[in-house]
Amino acid sequence: MKRLQDKIRQEGLILSDKVLKVDSFLNHQVDTELVLAIGEEFAAAFAGDGITKVLTIEASGIQFAMATAIALKVPFIYAKKKKTLTQGAHVYAADVYSFTKEEAYRVTVDQSFLTPEDTVLIVDDFLATGAALVGLADIVAQSGASLAGVGCVIEKSFQEGRSLLEQRSIRIVSLARIASMSPGRISFA
Amino acid sequence: MKRLQDKIRQEGLILSDKVLKVDSFLNHQVDTELVLAIGEEFAAAFAGDGITKVLTIEASGIQFAMATAIALKVPFIYAKKKKTLTQGAHVYAADVYSFTKEEAYRVTVDQSFLTPEDTVLIVDDFLATGAALVGLADIVAQSGASLAGVGCVIEKSFQEGRSLLEQRSIRIVSLARIASMSPGRISFA
Repeated sequence: MKRLQDKIRQEGLILSDKVLKVDSFLNHQVDTELVLAIGEEFAAAFAGDGITKVLTIEASGIQFAMATAIALKVPFIYAKKKKTLTQGAHVYAADVYSFTKEEAYRVTVDQSFLTPEDTVLIVDDFLATGAALVGLADIVAQSGASLAGVGCVIEKSFQEGRSLLEQRSIRIVSLARIASMSPGRISFA
Repeated sequence: MKRLQDKIRQEGLILSDKVLKVDSFLNHQVDTELVLAIGEEFAAAFAGDGITKVLTIEASGIQFAMATAIALKVPFIYAKKKKTLTQGAHVYAADVYSFTKEEAYRVTVDQSFLTPEDTVLIVDDFLATGAALVGLADIVAQSGASLAGVGCVIEKSFQEGRSLLEQRSIRIVSLARIASMSPGRISFA
């Protein structure tokens, strides 16, 4: 997606060869129009697949799942990162390790929101280690729903996430695939 | 907002006289169309105020801030709940205690995203104790931006949040004001 790649070149901050900060337009301050356009891209890529629900993980996947759900005219679900007082026991769960936050957490989805009749599109902001997306794919498998694929806004192609998903025969649509980067330089695949 | 109140009556789960679960349509599974309509309500209520940014807090405020930002055609910002490796030191910060999660956390917004030229509308899912919203109002004050008001999807009018905000002369627009509730029964103000 050229518009997204241009924005990353203009406003992305490359802090190291692994850390790209897109806080000014994607996941802290959010460029609403750009995110709606991202949702339309994902919706177009999976237009023929009969998606019934979009699934993501809190927090920074929510705006992309919502934009995609708007374009597909379906509900979306965001998996929760740990139990709160208002969450019941009847959940699908997967354990995920976050390298960004350096902590493990449990991801849960209420069992009543995913059934074998659903066809699910998973959406998230980054595909890097793939840990969160593999967890979400596990949750879809537990529910018996069909998984149409995964939509990633930004893929760090030099990390192992893509191969972890491909091993599971999961279709991946990434809108900006970073082949390599370092402070002041970024190249897209 | 009658459509919202009807949905709460139909699908909300009242777990106690303080806990209302709206996970099936607002903050776990999300009814995309309803949330877009909520955003339009907030946008209409603050239409004459020259809003330049919508501000909320991760995670469950994001969908409502985005819907409002879509309707107002402005960017939105979601405050972060604790420092991550990719967040710098130049932040506005406020400390908040969550009664739902029974823990304190620090809320931060990057200083580059709010300036004295901004007019801010704060949006969140619930107004109950008001702790999170007071924290966001503090952050707006730190930045020198103008605060147009606060939009709450659901207000628990029997808790102290409204009076805390009113003490600060903050305008409040709530779309569903719950006067009282108990399992099986809910009354709106």
